[in-house]
Amino acid sequence: MKTEVRYFSGLDGVIASETKISFLDTVQGEIVIRGYDLIKLSKNQSYLDIVHLLLENRLPTVEERTSIADMLKGEYHIPAEVLNIFRHLPQVTHPMDGLRTGISALAGYDNKIDDRSSKINKERAYKLLGKVPNIVANSYRIINGQDVIEPMNKLSYSANFFYMLTGKIPSLLEEMIFDLSLVLYSEHEMPNSTFTARVIASTQSDLFGALTGAIASLKGSLHGGANEAVMYMLNEAKTVAEFEEILHKKLYNKEKIMGFGHRVYMKKMDPRALMMKKALKKLCDEHGDDLLLRMCAAGEKIMEDEKGLYPNLDYYAAPVYWMLGIPIALYTPIFFSSRTVGLCAHVIEQHEHNRLFRPRVLYTGERHSLRN
Amino acid sequence: MKTEVRYFSGLDGVIASETKISFLDTVQGEIVIRGYDLIKLSKNQSYLDIVHLLLENRLPTVEERTSIADMLKGEYHIPAEVLNIFRHLPQVTHPMDGLRTGISALAGYDNKIDDRSSKINKERAYKLLGKVPNIVANSYRIINGQDVIEPMNKLSYSANFFYMLTGKIPSLLEEMIFDLSLVLYSEHEMPNSTFTARVIASTQSDLFGALTGAIASLKGSLHGGANEAVMYMLNEAKTVAEFEEILHKKLYNKEKIMGFGHRVYMKKMDPRALMMKKALKKLCDEHGDDLLLRMCAAGEKIMEDEKGLYPNLDYYAAPVYWMLGIPIALYTPIFFSSRTVGLCAHVIEQHEHNRLFRPRVLYTGERHSLRN
Ligand SMILES: CC(C)(COP(=O)(O)OP(=O)(O)OC[C@H]1O[C@@H](n2cnc3c(N)ncnc32)[C@H](O)[C@@H]1OP(=O)(O)O)[C@@H](O)C(=O)NCCC(=O)NCCS
Ligand SMILES: CC(C)(COP(=O)(O)OP(=O)(O)OC[C@H]1O[C@@H](n2cnc3c(N)ncnc32)[C@H](O)[C@@H]1OP(=O)(O)O)[C@@H](O)C(=O)NCCC(=O)NCCS
Repeated sequence: MKTEVRYFSGLDGVIASETKISFLDTVQGEIVIRGYDLIKLSKNQSYLDIVHLLLENRLPTVEERTSIADMLKGEYHIPAEVLNIFRHLPQVTHPMDGLRTGISALAGYDNKIDDRSSKINKERAYKLLGKVPNIVANSYRIINGQDVIEPMNKLSYSANFFYMLTGKIPSLLEEMIFDLSLVLYSEHEMPNSTFTARVIASTQSDLFGALTGAIASLKGSLHGGANEAVMYMLNEAKTVAEFEEILHKKLYNKEKIMGFGHRVYMKKMDPRALMMKKALKKLCDEHGDDLLLRMCAAGEKIMEDEKGLYPNLDYYAAPVYWMLGIPIALYTPIFFSSRTVGLCAHVIEQHEHNRLFRPRVLYTGERHSLRN
Repeated sequence: MKTEVRYFSGLDGVIASETKISFLDTVQGEIVIRGYDLIKLSKNQSYLDIVHLLLENRLPTVEERTSIADMLKGEYHIPAEVLNIFRHLPQVTHPMDGLRTGISALAGYDNKIDDRSSKINKERAYKLLGKVPNIVANSYRIINGQDVIEPMNKLSYSANFFYMLTGKIPSLLEEMIFDLSLVLYSEHEMPNSTFTARVIASTQSDLFGALTGAIASLKGSLHGGANEAVMYMLNEAKTVAEFEEILHKKLYNKEKIMGFGHRVYMKKMDPRALMMKKALKKLCDEHGDDLLLRMCAAGEKIMEDEKGLYPNLDYYAAPVYWMLGIPIALYTPIFFSSRTVGLCAHVIEQHEHNRLFRPRVLYTGERHSLRN
């Protein structure tokens, strides 16, 4: 027990964990993932390569990449009873709440739930990586009264996920861009959801609980919920001028503009956002319609001029998902799905070197005495 | 953005929040709850008084106490669809996982889910306080193939909860002791589960998400799960000597002994444990059987002598719940149920004065370069 205590609002500037997983190196300008720069990785590696890197601590060989894809296909299936749970949720249930309920329920199907060894945690992680896209897609579909969609095994992991979200098989460009988005969302040091997962895991609670908490965290508009909030904001406008007016009005009302700012790189553009901006440009070229790109660029300029703030990944992921034809309500669930691997890596690491998270408070309330 | 960063393992000694809710004052030896000492409160106030104190920031008048009891009775009911969800969970589902799934599902029934104002959060808190005992009891019963039990409105809040857990109406002594345990578990500054709830709420996520995460946290054996672990350990022995042997063996194997130690008052007995020890004595007197008390006292002595560690609340709550005839699997869900009010107070406070929790890491992994 220490007696010296200090207060850091929002834990700004506090190191909460040691980790070998990832690190935002603002000095060298790298998002370090298991030693590699994420942006460089994103140029040549697919999502399953990153999965392997995060869970096995090295990039896969060609054979390993194939075998991971096959292994995950063997895990696509989810119990019919879990699908039935979604049938009991009210139609107004938020997709993140449906997803959270599904992941929570899945705990009952893990017959080694009390085993938190790295070996079993890793097996569990692969199982979840197989199932999460299915749960994301079908929880949403069932809650909204649509038919269940079955995974299509002949497609790649990302193409199948895309297919389950939209009902259509992606073009090669669509598949590549969707896969890129999954790479970029896969892992990002210690955002609120990862921190939530580690805090929960530190009580010796299990991976399902940690992921359930992470979904709850990601739902919030200051975190994962920002990508869908950005799209609703873009959709309020029909022209660049209208979008500019909306932003000016929000700034005048001192509202926070979703998709801008970041605790760690507040005064620079999130390098992941730049990758998504380029992808948006490709999609706009393909569609022969660059309205969304022009709107976003105009918004970027306003925010730089007026607030000195720069886009984060969510700002450009949102219009990309829109142009890919994905329902807005699924943007944050996709973020979770991609981040599942990073979260699992963190829970494994937490269980390997555990200390309970238990901070203190600064009490600013009154003191009363009570007669007994 | 700060550049100075420091590492605190498990956030030991870090102040994570300002709060007007509670504070472990180790200097004056008080568990301060809205200004009052919890131990003193526990001598004259019932659980619903503490509910009022935590949510309304003052003790209730006699009329307010009655009206809060009536209001909660009006909220006992849970949707039939939520009960149906429990029917789809495998019978091996851990009670905390069933509870977590139920609370998560309940989010879909909140038609103001996006409203995080204090007024609506407080209304939500009362609704949940009405429903949580029902969800705790019936998720457990349904998962285990038992009939649904209906709340009994003529009983007090605590007596009804006891009835729903055990199927029997408590004696006056049983009701008083059970209510006391709820008072003692109601709020305790910033343990892992409360911290989890605040971290989640800080993304602007909602109360249901925060509670879902808190349940996941409480499940862990280093936190809420300790009370059931204590009882399993006590039940391994049939005599005091056997229990002593078990403890010695565990200590020899360098195992952690559940029910001992606490981040904040590691070298003193948790004052709440003392209250439960007295309650245990009363129950032993009533039953004319003090084996459990003698076993616990012997364990206390060994831990003091060998490790200089003292019991926490879970150590004495466990045998109390056992003598009250409550199934072991429900001990941690009861902890959650009682703590719901404290958690709600913290989420309300977090939403009132929010800053996103987002700490950093100490990267200890390798760095590689990648040819592009
Ligand atoms: C990400 C975020 C939560 C980081 O927050 P933080 O480190 O706690 O920073 P703060 O909220 O304290 O912001 C610092 C200042 O910048 C302002 N600011 C930060 N982000 C802003 C935004 N998106 N729009 C307008 N102003 C913003 C704040 O109002 C604050 O100004 P003040 O000092 O005058 O009060 C914040 O930038 C934000 O809310 N962004 C919008 C949500 C979003 O896109 N989230 C996804 C992140 S990947
Ligand atoms: C509550 C608890 C997690 C606090 O943990 P913490 O502040 O992180 O303290 P640590 O785990 O670092 O413990 C400090 C030292 O005391 C020892 N210790 C703490 N609690 C112990 C216990 N219950 N049994 C045996 N040794 C214990 C640790 O092994 C450690 O010894 P070391 O320095 O030789 O390694 C810890 O006391 C514990 O695990 N208790 C048992 C679980 C429990 O009852 N939880 C309910 C709490 S209300």
